[in-house]
Amino acid sequence: MAAERVLQSQEFAALYAEVQRFYAHQMRILDAHDAERWAGTFTEDAVFELPSLSGPLRARAGLARYVRAGEARQRRVGNRLHHWIGMLDVRPQADGSLHTRCSALVYVTPRGGSSRVLYVCVMEDVLVRIRGRWRTAHRRVTRDDLA
Amino acid sequence: MAAERVLQSQEFAALYAEVQRFYAHQMRILDAHDAERWAGTFTEDAVFELPSLSGPLRARAGLARYVRAGEARQRRVGNRLHHWIGMLDVRPQADGSLHTRCSALVYVTPRGGSSRVLYVCVMEDVLVRIRGRWRTAHRRVTRDDLA
Amino acid sequence: MAAERVLQSQEFAALYAEVQRFYAHQMRILDAHDAERWAGTFTEDAVFELPSLSGPLRARAGLARYVRAGEARQRRVGNRLHHWIGMLDVRPQADGSLHTRCSALVYVTPRGGSSRVLYVCVMEDVLVRIRGRWRTAHRRVTRDDLA
Repeated sequence: MAAERVLQSQEFAALYAEVQRFYAHQMRILDAHDAERWAGTFTEDAVFELPSLSGPLRARAGLARYVRAGEARQRRVGNRLHHWIGMLDVRPQADGSLHTRCSALVYVTPRGGSSRVLYVCVMEDVLVRIRGRWRTAHRRVTRDDLA
Repeated sequence: MAAERVLQSQEFAALYAEVQRFYAHQMRILDAHDAERWAGTFTEDAVFELPSLSGPLRARAGLARYVRAGEARQRRVGNRLHHWIGMLDVRPQADGSLHTRCSALVYVTPRGGSSRVLYVCVMEDVLVRIRGRWRTAHRRVTRDDLA
Repeated sequence: MAAERVLQSQEFAALYAEVQRFYAHQMRILDAHDAERWAGTFTEDAVFELPSLSGPLRARAGLARYVRAGEARQRRVGNRLHHWIGMLDVRPQADGSLHTRCSALVYVTPRGGSSRVLYVCVMEDVLVRIRGRWRTAHRRVTRDDLA
């Protein structure tokens, strides 16, 4: 396991802002069901563990399929999801990767109806930088209602 | 349309923190119904597009009026609103302005009652710096329940 | 009262990121009922004012006791709490301390049930740096439903 790396305070702030912006982008295109672009924010061989699935999602093809299935389901039911990230911790590793931990809220809004919180989650990522851009290499999500 | 400007990572972090703080301040005085001060966080000729209104709000006078009407309505009903910004993206433009996009939650708490989420929104701003302070020149809000 | 100190923009961003990370950590160990570690994120003689208590909590012993009582209550009822901080303002003081103000959400999830927002709060802290780490010296929380 990679050792943790201690950064100077302004370097840490730079990373912290980059990661916040990365998640804002990644969640926005998820909520817009932009399956291919969303899968492209993961590494080619990413692994995504979700508590609602029997096994992990693997690689970009599996990730994109998952988003398209979610879109079809939401269209049928007439629901709109909105993901929200916060309470972010970022731990830079000696190998240049980042271990992140954050809370994630999922809000649901039925067409013409009242919004409500659907899930309260914890999300743990390994991020790697590929050609100047952060990509999720590994993600594990746990949900408060299933914990 | 202004071209986007690429910043060095620590410069971006500085802007990102400034904008987060700007919104924390702007939403706090909105929730406190401080109509004049809130309108003062916009430019003189700001335009504010809200999905619940038939036309855009214009200039500081229009903005302050909108807050006073909201205060009167909340007093009558006995509700308290609490605005929450997150999932922020900031795109610096070549002309020095910032294009921002964020998610906005509105929580409502009836007097002595239970809080709940009222609206889940997306907010897109153009921010300009006037005498060292960020001001909103244009704002467009869309609501998940009306989208 | 200490005078406010104006920081250069990148210095401010560094502090702002540190404080965000501090709260992510402090709230995570609170939700995990890690009473001793949580109390350790306060100064020895910290004072914590909560609207639901008749008087302030004092010092680390009082803080840890409060968390253990909360854990026992949540175990009995089968509830899980999740604290969420946002809308952060940080005001560096001339004496090196920080005055912070933020919004705090508390989500509750019954075992196997649906999550919902429990409280919408405002949290005001005085943070001091002790051996390189931020510690809460004073905290005052107000709740929208009791305001």
